[in-house]
Amino acid sequence: MPETPSLARIDADLLNQLMEKVSEFGSTGDGGVDRPVLTDAHKAARDWFRAELTARGYTVLVDAIGNLFGRIDLAGPDAPLVMIGSHLDSQPKGGRFDGAYGVMAALAAVESFRKGTEAPRCNYVIADWMNEEGARFQPSLLGSSVFAGLLDLDWALARRDRDGKSVGEELVRTGYKGTDAAPRPDLYLEIHIEGDSKMETAGARIAPFLRHWGALKVRIEVTGEQNHTGPTPMEDRKDAVLGAAHIIAELRRLADVAEDTLFTSVARVDISPNSPNIVPGKAILFCELRAPEQAMLDWSEASLRAALPELAARARTTAEIVSVDRRPAGKFDPRLAMLTERAADDFGLPKMQLDTIGGHDAVAVNAILPALVIAVPSVGGVIHRNDEYTSPEDLAAGGDVLTDMVRRIDRAGGDLDLALGANA
Amino acid sequence: MPETPSLARIDADLLNQLMEKVSEFGSTGDGGVDRPVLTDAHKAARDWFRAELTARGYTVLVDAIGNLFGRIDLAGPDAPLVMIGSHLDSQPKGGRFDGAYGVMAALAAVESFRKGTEAPRCNYVIADWMNEEGARFQPSLLGSSVFAGLLDLDWALARRDRDGKSVGEELVRTGYKGTDAAPRPDLYLEIHIEGDSKMETAGARIAPFLRHWGALKVRIEVTGEQNHTGPTPMEDRKDAVLGAAHIIAELRRLADVAEDTLFTSVARVDISPNSPNIVPGKAILFCELRAPEQAMLDWSEASLRAALPELAARARTTAEIVSVDRRPAGKFDPRLAMLTERAADDFGLPKMQLDTIGGHDAVAVNAILPALVIAVPSVGGVIHRNDEYTSPEDLAAGGDVLTDMVRRIDRAGGDLDLALGANA
Repeated sequence: MPETPSLARIDADLLNQLMEKVSEFGSTGDGGVDRPVLTDAHKAARDWFRAELTARGYTVLVDAIGNLFGRIDLAGPDAPLVMIGSHLDSQPKGGRFDGAYGVMAALAAVESFRKGTEAPRCNYVIADWMNEEGARFQPSLLGSSVFAGLLDLDWALARRDRDGKSVGEELVRTGYKGTDAAPRPDLYLEIHIEGDSKMETAGARIAPFLRHWGALKVRIEVTGEQNHTGPTPMEDRKDAVLGAAHIIAELRRLADVAEDTLFTSVARVDISPNSPNIVPGKAILFCELRAPEQAMLDWSEASLRAALPELAARARTTAEIVSVDRRPAGKFDPRLAMLTERAADDFGLPKMQLDTIGGHDAVAVNAILPALVIAVPSVGGVIHRNDEYTSPEDLAAGGDVLTDMVRRIDRAGGDLDLALGANA
Repeated sequence: MPETPSLARIDADLLNQLMEKVSEFGSTGDGGVDRPVLTDAHKAARDWFRAELTARGYTVLVDAIGNLFGRIDLAGPDAPLVMIGSHLDSQPKGGRFDGAYGVMAALAAVESFRKGTEAPRCNYVIADWMNEEGARFQPSLLGSSVFAGLLDLDWALARRDRDGKSVGEELVRTGYKGTDAAPRPDLYLEIHIEGDSKMETAGARIAPFLRHWGALKVRIEVTGEQNHTGPTPMEDRKDAVLGAAHIIAELRRLADVAEDTLFTSVARVDISPNSPNIVPGKAILFCELRAPEQAMLDWSEASLRAALPELAARARTTAEIVSVDRRPAGKFDPRLAMLTERAADDFGLPKMQLDTIGGHDAVAVNAILPALVIAVPSVGGVIHRNDEYTSPEDLAAGGDVLTDMVRRIDRAGGDLDLALGANA
C-alpha cells in the first residue's frame, strides 16, 4: 500500500488578496459589484487581471470572441494542458463571488501548486470567459459556447445590447477583440458558488455537479388585433395578452404534471402597444423550460407545441414559436467528480452531489472536453445580488480541493483514470 | 290637431365652410389632423374659432380650466340657457370629424335657427371643452369634468404630459388660462361621429345615445419574489407574471359568464424586472371593466375583489388593487333622446338607438344637467385616424336634426316635457 501523498493546499492569503482586489472593479460600495460584460468596470477588471497574469509569467492570449487566457507551460510543449477558469463579468448590480471566485481560485490554485512542486507534468491555462451572464448580450455563455463550437463566431459578434451596440464593437472599444487562437486543453475545471441553499441546508462544503440540466429558451409571438378597449365587442377581440396568459398558465401546468423534474417560466413578456385602452395586438413571451434529463425536455417541448394552437385560439389569437435556443441536458465527467469527492474526503470536508441548473461556462466546454464544476456554498443561496456571500473559510476550502485536484491530475500526467487509481 | 310647424334645417353651406376651415388647423395633408390639446395647432384652431364667435356677436368666455364658450343672449337675461358643443382637440394624427364636427355643427345650428326665428325664447352657448381626448394629458374629459365638479380644478391643472409640462403651464402658454365663470346652462347637446360601424351596418343616419357605459379602471399590483429561473424550485417560486396570467384569464371569464353586458380587458402589464431568466417579482395590471348598467359594474368589481386573493395565491403571490378610477354608468336624458328621434322621423332619416362606451364630454356634463349625444355614422366605423370620414350629406342630416331640436326646445322655452308634448 503506497504512502498517502501529502495534500496540496491553496495559498489562502493569495486567494484573499486576489478576491479583495477584483472586488474593487465595479464595486457598488454595499458589498456587490456592477460589472456587466464589456463595460468600463469589466474592462478595468480584465486589464488588471491581464497584468497580474503577465507579472506572474503567464502568456496572455485573447481570442476572436474576447475570451482571455493566461497560459503557463510548466512541463514542455507536448505536456497535457489543464484549463481552469470562470468569468469576470457580473450581473447588473450583482455579487462579487459569482464568476470572479472561479477565476481567482484558478490562478491561486495553479500558483500554489507550482510553488510546491518539483517537476510539474502538465501545462496550465487560466480562462476568463467573455459574457457568461448574458444580462447585457443574449445568450449567456457566449464566449465559452463559441470556444466549444456551439455558436458561430460572427453570429456571436453581431449580438446587440438594448442600446444597439454589438459585442464586436464593444470588444474593440474595450481592447478585447483578440486574434490569438484559443488554447486546446485536455480537461477543464471550474469552481463556483452554489447559487442555491442546498449545500447550506445539508451542511456540505464541497459538491461536484454531476449533471447539467438542459434548457429550452423559447420565444413565442402571440398575434392578435389592435383595437380600442371601449367599443370592440368581446366576441370580436383578438387579445394578445389574453392569449399570452393562457400560454403562461399552461407552461406552469406542464411543470406541475410532468412525471419527472421540469422547471418552466415565462419571465419576460413584451407587449405591444401596452397601452391601457388598446386591445394588445402583439405579445412576445420569453419562455424557459429546464430539466436534468433530455427526455423530459423533449416531452415538454412536444407538449407545448401541441397545446399552443388551442391556447392561442381561446383568445382568437395565433401563436408562433419564433426561436428556440437549445441547451441539451448532459453529464459532467464522472471521473472529475470522483476526484473532487476524494479530495474533499481527504480534507475532511462534508460533501454532497448536485446538479447545475443555471448555465456555467463548464456546461459549454463539457461539449468537447472532460469538464466539471465544483461548488462551494453561498449563504442563504443568494446569488446575483449585493448580499451574495461565501465566507473566506469556504472559499479557501474550495480552493484547497481545487488545488489538490490539480496535484492529483498533474501527478497522473493528465490521465484521469490513472489519477483515480493512483490516488485510490 | 295643430298644424305641424315647419322643421328648422341647418345652413349646410355654412356648416361645410366651417368644417373646411377648422380642418386646416393641424392638417396632416392626408385628410387627418394632428391637433392634440394645447399644442400650437390646437391654439390656432381655438384662436380662429374665438374670432369667429366674436365676429358673429357671441360673448367669448374662458374658464379656469381652459374651456372656451361663446354665449349669445337672444331672449333676455333670465331666459333658459341651452349649451351645445364638443371639442377642438384631436388625437395625435387623428381625424378631422371627431370633436370638431360637434363644435362647428353647434355654431351652425344656432346661427341657422336664429336667422329663421322671430322671437327666440332661449339663450345659447357654444362650448369647446378642453382636453376631451386625454392623449396628451390624462385623464380624458378633463375640462368637462372640472365643469361638472367631477374633478378638482387644481388637480386638473397639475396634470403633466410625458415631457413634464403641466396643463396649467400650457394653458398660460396658449392663452387659454381664463378667469371667467363658466356659464350654467339648463341642458346640453352634443353631436358626434359614431366611432363604430353599427349605424352603417344598420343603415341608420341618426342615433341618440341612450346610455353611457360606466367604466372601472383598476390597477392591480401583483407581488411575488424575484429569483433566478434556474435553481429556484418550482414549489418555492412566487411568480408575479403567473399570478398576473390567472387574473387576466379570470377578468375575461367574468365577461363571458356575466348575465348582462360586460367588457373587460387587461391591455397593459408592467413587469419587473421583465428579464428572461429572473422570476418576476412584480407585475402591475391596468384593467378596464365597462358596462352599460351600474349594477353589472358593481357585480364585476365585487367578483374581481373576491377572486383576487385565490388567483394570486395560485402563483404564491399577493395581489392588491392599488387604484380604481370610476366612471359611473348612466343614462342620458330620455326626453332629449325622444326629441332626437322625432326630428329624425320628421326628416325621414333612418334612426337607431345606441349606447356610448367611450367617453364624451356629454357624459361628464350629464352628471349635473340633462344632456345627450347624437351620433351620425362614420364610414367603416373608423375613428382617431386620418381616414376617419363622414359624408357632407350625413353631416348636414345630423345638423338638421340638431337645428330642429334647438327649434323644438326653444319653442317650448327650454321645457323638455313641453317640447315633447308640443311637438307630439
